[in-house]
Amino acid sequence: MRFDETYSGNVFIKSHPNYEESKAVLYGMPMDWTVSYRPGSRFGPTRIREVSIGLEEYSPYLDRELEEVKFFDAGDIPLPFGNPKKSLEEIKSFVRQLLADGKVPIGMGGEHLVSLPVMEAVYEKHDDLAIIHFDAHTDLRTDYEGEPYSHATPIRKIAEHIGPHNVYSFGIRSGLKEEFIWAKENGMHISKFEVLEPLKEVLPTLAGRNVYVTIDIDVLDPGHAPGTGTVDCGGITPKELLASIHAIAGSDVNVVGFDLVEVAPIYDVSEMTSNTAAKLIREMILGWVK
Amino acid sequence: MRFDETYSGNVFIKSHPNYEESKAVLYGMPMDWTVSYRPGSRFGPTRIREVSIGLEEYSPYLDRELEEVKFFDAGDIPLPFGNPKKSLEEIKSFVRQLLADGKVPIGMGGEHLVSLPVMEAVYEKHDDLAIIHFDAHTDLRTDYEGEPYSHATPIRKIAEHIGPHNVYSFGIRSGLKEEFIWAKENGMHISKFEVLEPLKEVLPTLAGRNVYVTIDIDVLDPGHAPGTGTVDCGGITPKELLASIHAIAGSDVNVVGFDLVEVAPIYDVSEMTSNTAAKLIREMILGWVK
Amino acid sequence: MRFDETYSGNVFIKSHPNYEESKAVLYGMPMDWTVSYRPGSRFGPTRIREVSIGLEEYSPYLDRELEEVKFFDAGDIPLPFGNPKKSLEEIKSFVRQLLADGKVPIGMGGEHLVSLPVMEAVYEKHDDLAIIHFDAHTDLRTDYEGEPYSHATPIRKIAEHIGPHNVYSFGIRSGLKEEFIWAKENGMHISKFEVLEPLKEVLPTLAGRNVYVTIDIDVLDPGHAPGTGTVDCGGITPKELLASIHAIAGSDVNVVGFDLVEVAPIYDVSEMTSNTAAKLIREMILGWVK
Amino acid sequence: MRFDETYSGNVFIKSHPNYEESKAVLYGMPMDWTVSYRPGSRFGPTRIREVSIGLEEYSPYLDRELEEVKFFDAGDIPLPFGNPKKSLEEIKSFVRQLLADGKVPIGMGGEHLVSLPVMEAVYEKHDDLAIIHFDAHTDLRTDYEGEPYSHATPIRKIAEHIGPHNVYSFGIRSGLKEEFIWAKENGMHISKFEVLEPLKEVLPTLAGRNVYVTIDIDVLDPGHAPGTGTVDCGGITPKELLASIHAIAGSDVNVVGFDLVEVAPIYDVSEMTSNTAAKLIREMILGWVK
Amino acid sequence: MRFDETYSGNVFIKSHPNYEESKAVLYGMPMDWTVSYRPGSRFGPTRIREVSIGLEEYSPYLDRELEEVKFFDAGDIPLPFGNPKKSLEEIKSFVRQLLADGKVPIGMGGEHLVSLPVMEAVYEKHDDLAIIHFDAHTDLRTDYEGEPYSHATPIRKIAEHIGPHNVYSFGIRSGLKEEFIWAKENGMHISKFEVLEPLKEVLPTLAGRNVYVTIDIDVLDPGHAPGTGTVDCGGITPKELLASIHAIAGSDVNVVGFDLVEVAPIYDVSEMTSNTAAKLIREMILGWVK
Amino acid sequence: MRFDETYSGNVFIKSHPNYEESKAVLYGMPMDWTVSYRPGSRFGPTRIREVSIGLEEYSPYLDRELEEVKFFDAGDIPLPFGNPKKSLEEIKSFVRQLLADGKVPIGMGGEHLVSLPVMEAVYEKHDDLAIIHFDAHTDLRTDYEGEPYSHATPIRKIAEHIGPHNVYSFGIRSGLKEEFIWAKENGMHISKFEVLEPLKEVLPTLAGRNVYVTIDIDVLDPGHAPGTGTVDCGGITPKELLASIHAIAGSDVNVVGFDLVEVAPIYDVSEMTSNTAAKLIREMILGWVK
Repeated sequence: MRFDETYSGNVFIKSHPNYEESKAVLYGMPMDWTVSYRPGSRFGPTRIREVSIGLEEYSPYLDRELEEVKFFDAGDIPLPFGNPKKSLEEIKSFVRQLLADGKVPIGMGGEHLVSLPVMEAVYEKHDDLAIIHFDAHTDLRTDYEGEPYSHATPIRKIAEHIGPHNVYSFGIRSGLKEEFIWAKENGMHISKFEVLEPLKEVLPTLAGRNVYVTIDIDVLDPGHAPGTGTVDCGGITPKELLASIHAIAGSDVNVVGFDLVEVAPIYDVSEMTSNTAAKLIREMILGWVK
Repeated sequence: MRFDETYSGNVFIKSHPNYEESKAVLYGMPMDWTVSYRPGSRFGPTRIREVSIGLEEYSPYLDRELEEVKFFDAGDIPLPFGNPKKSLEEIKSFVRQLLADGKVPIGMGGEHLVSLPVMEAVYEKHDDLAIIHFDAHTDLRTDYEGEPYSHATPIRKIAEHIGPHNVYSFGIRSGLKEEFIWAKENGMHISKFEVLEPLKEVLPTLAGRNVYVTIDIDVLDPGHAPGTGTVDCGGITPKELLASIHAIAGSDVNVVGFDLVEVAPIYDVSEMTSNTAAKLIREMILGWVK
Repeated sequence: MRFDETYSGNVFIKSHPNYEESKAVLYGMPMDWTVSYRPGSRFGPTRIREVSIGLEEYSPYLDRELEEVKFFDAGDIPLPFGNPKKSLEEIKSFVRQLLADGKVPIGMGGEHLVSLPVMEAVYEKHDDLAIIHFDAHTDLRTDYEGEPYSHATPIRKIAEHIGPHNVYSFGIRSGLKEEFIWAKENGMHISKFEVLEPLKEVLPTLAGRNVYVTIDIDVLDPGHAPGTGTVDCGGITPKELLASIHAIAGSDVNVVGFDLVEVAPIYDVSEMTSNTAAKLIREMILGWVK
Repeated sequence: MRFDETYSGNVFIKSHPNYEESKAVLYGMPMDWTVSYRPGSRFGPTRIREVSIGLEEYSPYLDRELEEVKFFDAGDIPLPFGNPKKSLEEIKSFVRQLLADGKVPIGMGGEHLVSLPVMEAVYEKHDDLAIIHFDAHTDLRTDYEGEPYSHATPIRKIAEHIGPHNVYSFGIRSGLKEEFIWAKENGMHISKFEVLEPLKEVLPTLAGRNVYVTIDIDVLDPGHAPGTGTVDCGGITPKELLASIHAIAGSDVNVVGFDLVEVAPIYDVSEMTSNTAAKLIREMILGWVK
Repeated sequence: MRFDETYSGNVFIKSHPNYEESKAVLYGMPMDWTVSYRPGSRFGPTRIREVSIGLEEYSPYLDRELEEVKFFDAGDIPLPFGNPKKSLEEIKSFVRQLLADGKVPIGMGGEHLVSLPVMEAVYEKHDDLAIIHFDAHTDLRTDYEGEPYSHATPIRKIAEHIGPHNVYSFGIRSGLKEEFIWAKENGMHISKFEVLEPLKEVLPTLAGRNVYVTIDIDVLDPGHAPGTGTVDCGGITPKELLASIHAIAGSDVNVVGFDLVEVAPIYDVSEMTSNTAAKLIREMILGWVK
Repeated sequence: MRFDETYSGNVFIKSHPNYEESKAVLYGMPMDWTVSYRPGSRFGPTRIREVSIGLEEYSPYLDRELEEVKFFDAGDIPLPFGNPKKSLEEIKSFVRQLLADGKVPIGMGGEHLVSLPVMEAVYEKHDDLAIIHFDAHTDLRTDYEGEPYSHATPIRKIAEHIGPHNVYSFGIRSGLKEEFIWAKENGMHISKFEVLEPLKEVLPTLAGRNVYVTIDIDVLDPGHAPGTGTVDCGGITPKELLASIHAIAGSDVNVVGFDLVEVAPIYDVSEMTSNTAAKLIREMILGWVK
């Protein structure tokens, strides 16, 4: 972490050098030890920061520059390899501190399970919280072959915690039959396959609400995001995902935190997925941190 | 092959362990020795099976699970390296047996030439047969630099065999001028560039017909299917191809056999093309084997 | 270069063996030494020629074959490594000769800066010149960290040279705030994000004009063109770019030269980007050289 | 696992189809969740089996064929993702069963920590056990950043369990200063950098002893084994490692079990490391299972 | 082929532009259709020529420059895809012509089977012919699963043709037990595992003989030559192979032809194997063509 | 650069946070714009730092830990893309400052030309300077196709500057005939092909001398260092290079500066070359900075 003087890692482009003065805090959660398929997302945050250097600081979409938003890059949270329980505790404790200090938490995964403690911590502060979730997968299992701490369970756990009717999933194209049934029976919103159109319908109903947004990069089609652990064809384009971010930016919801997870540079080509992740983070910072 | 006890290869997810009880039979045709450009599709079937393990067994598109359809995975047909003539004979003889046993043949290539003996065998059984063909290439040559057994000739040969007016090609974006002219003059259907819209127009005219469907993975744009021998930009997205499969599933044609060919894992990135192939096969099994 | 007898490199498919008899001349400009991010486009022209062998000579889009257009492949212009000033002089001098001989210049980059001397030479001949520019980036800087010869400056320099109102950029999604402001204040046309629709609006206004077209391959989304130095998500598909080329072919502008730049094979997968570049060049030759 | 009828994975070339009749049992331990650097060895066993198909069954080194040794391939032990404690218990319990049935255990990792429960189980049966250990790394830490279950600790733990003077490490070129000091002070054998010569000196002193051999593939130089998580230059060649295996085969030690760990196919090129692993396993089976 | 005027491929560095004036002729045999494992060597000759451009023309080993030896690069022999019988006939007929014209044939594969017709043609001219063979594999099968034309049979066939006692294989580390037995019983020389030392012993016994040398690149360890179809660890280093070439150059044998086969660029990294092949060819030309 | 507060890049493992207190200074020279073959070494320094995190801090070769040597990591020197002249001036000026402050300069390239201004600056301070040079290439050209600033010229230029008899090259296996002749006629030492043995002979003759050591990573065989621009087989192993570094450490020369150049991560596999570079730098720091 970067709070002490000896920090020696790289940071996101145009991040602010001072924690106290910053409105938002970016941090990495380099955990991938519960994934059932291909690991490697632990290297996502480092690589996203590295390629962010090549980004322009200005968004022609939002006509805004990064220096207009003060955000601090805290580096990666040190997590104990192979110990998911303790890792999640470390993340929650870190995010609680950020929230106590009035910062907007901006997380980079790591596997999707890392979003769970963040959302729990945010819910402690905002009890009207709604979750907007972009993903190829439901992530609604109760456990994965007996393990409750799994990359396949975070949305189920947070839905049970804050109420399924407060969770809105978009772009979903894979899951167990039981997961879809559970969602339907419990009033959770799932938009299968599509993102932008159903999002535009949902956003007005969330006007004035505090919202946490969690994006699994695999909501994109593998052709546009090969650098991830579980590829599943039939996803959306970066253009649609950018438009969805801008739709939220233009809506009346109040984004109180967000993350982007599951970037695994090992499987990438031409650093395409890391670059896309960096650009998405830039757009979210510029559009959502007000 | 897997009929004897000593079979030691992997099989497609949720394939049924018993041949007799199965309605359909999946098999690999690992031949790539006549291709003029980049070989490697011989490894397609093995890799597709391998990655199929990561697939969900449930289709949220069709609301159906793989265990609802009994299909047997027979492994790969042993083919003599470098001997196309004998290879095609082996394939035809194998498929004839499947048809005699009342099974729906589901093939995985291999180069596109492997589809020819399958279609010939299916035509022996169903003399009203129509072919639906998704591809970037016409495959309508009479020969390739003097060789009649070539990956560039199978559609021409089957068209001459069953009558060109019974062949419907979609998504075509490459071929010789003569091939397009031959198709036009002989009443064969070719939809250039597009797939879904023209397919929806054609399907009603095929209502009640027995149909064999052959998909060359390169009908997809290379961005979505790099793992193939001959890339050619300007193709469709996986979303459109999935929708086309579902359109056939929802139509009144009777699919009596199908295949997916030209997956070459060597050129793939992030196992994207193999995963896409596995998902397409799942959707075709769930949608077409009734 | 190929004018002397000892030329030993490969050439583009169906290029004409004789310079004098040819209407157009294809040449490579293998320079990448001013790029700020990832080099490698020096190998673009060679690889594009190599994969062009796998192309069909016939375009089903335009119903025309390469042998209907005589174009000569002159090989790569020899450029001094690490010396941009001298390299640009070599390019300009070469293109001047082509124009003096009445040939249509067709360039392959190399980094985008190579287009500058070509456009300058073309402007010497055609003083009513308009530029059509497809790109992800504005390329409108005056300098890059003090260096005026940079891959980030060519459009600015040519705009100042021929008048900003004669420059039409499409697909732009990255740049400095100042660049967008400069373009607006100086009457230059920029279509952000989109290409085909705004192009169709602009083309009638250019009827009868002499036009040079410069395409940076990164106007495509990285999913469709990973083989380039600076990837930036949110781009268009090859289908849209092909349609744009055909729109120009069908319009009343007079294309007096064109180029395709920034193909960097090192970052490519399955030779997808090189193949796409070769096909785009085929379509431009068939559609624009009349 | 392969004991039940529904097993559907691939197996090592020429493995025997019957457990009861076999003298040795090959099994995979697909765990990589405690590694501090690059994960991916979970896919080692599957890929090694896959490429083993290309191996010759005959060893010209030992003049012996695989069919002369009956070994059963039990597939991979199912391990709970992200739960090292439970994973190690599963492994130990499985190996205890093998030993109770009189089989020689042959393990494929997975990370090196998987060797620990195997060695513990073997020690329960053979209380005179000595360990021969080939590795680039000492693996002698007491814990890794507080976690006792780590890929950096297995040799320390087994050394404390069976007595450090019964452990012989070869090829070591990386570790903490404290690890080397601990080894020296506690009478454990470490041959730094070299393998074959010191091994030949040690083997006569172990004559008649029961020995377990554990090989971390990174004892090879990265040039010969890129497909592993932690590369460290200065290692030995495959030729030397083969000669070391043959030296053990020709000695008077009694090999009661062995493993090969840390093959991570994701980082491999040309399947070189997996092929090397398969060949090493063939030689160990032919040389050591008597 | 390059004898006609329209040749448009690349050529080996410093090859002579004129066939008649040349002493030796370099040609590619781009066939890979009988291989049982991984295809791709059809692209070997093209890539070797391409990277040869980066070679120095001077050998500090032999103190000789390429311009001191006139050799013509004839391009690739056009071979019918998937038709091994006809392909071998084309090769033999081409080489017969070279020999009739008094040229030294220098072949680039392609799979190893391409060497067979060349050796047969050379034997027609030199009935005292001896073969020196560097390889990881025996290549002594009579057939491969029933196919006599296979990459596993060329040495057997030529040995039966010219007499097994005239064939000298070096570096062999893989084969069937029967192959080794056949060699031994029939007086053929096989040096297992090693190359340089046994070669130095054999060369004096061949003094004054006409010799054809065939090198399968997989005689090198995969760490040094990943770009080949069948990797097999335990091979020699490029340093040893260079020394072996120089040993032949310094001996009293008369090299009447030679080839280098099985380079498959698809599996290569950093173009290492192609570069090595180009350098080996340079050294063989400089050392053996007198 | 890292002297100001806003530095945001990563640093080498265990580098000291304070410039003033440090004895040595590590810096990157990310220039690759004069290379004639494959660029990409500009990314070497960043990647070497990144992978250094995985290194052990202790050397079992030298029994010394990094914290025993205070060295500061100054980051990369900002260099103007495509302007070699100005780039070399920036480097020289930076190194002069280091020397004025009494620091040992430790450079990371970048292409080999970056060593020239460093050696010139070191010579200004130590007029008895000798150069020890490990490389595959002579680098003794006067110019490269007319350009004096080229990656092929630095050793010639420094040899002319400090006297050829003060330059000792080892491992050389490529160059023009003229270069070898020039070296011989001018009393420069070149050991062809070999490194360790001739180095051991030379070192005693340099006892008491101030020495600068420059290592081109391509002195290693490509099998051990694929991540470089110009691969050339026949090189040494990392074991031999480590032994050479340790031989210098054990000799009586006084190393007053050193560098490691030409690491190009784009062509690497498994980060092997970057890891090797980081380990070599650790050994040089531990062995040479006293």
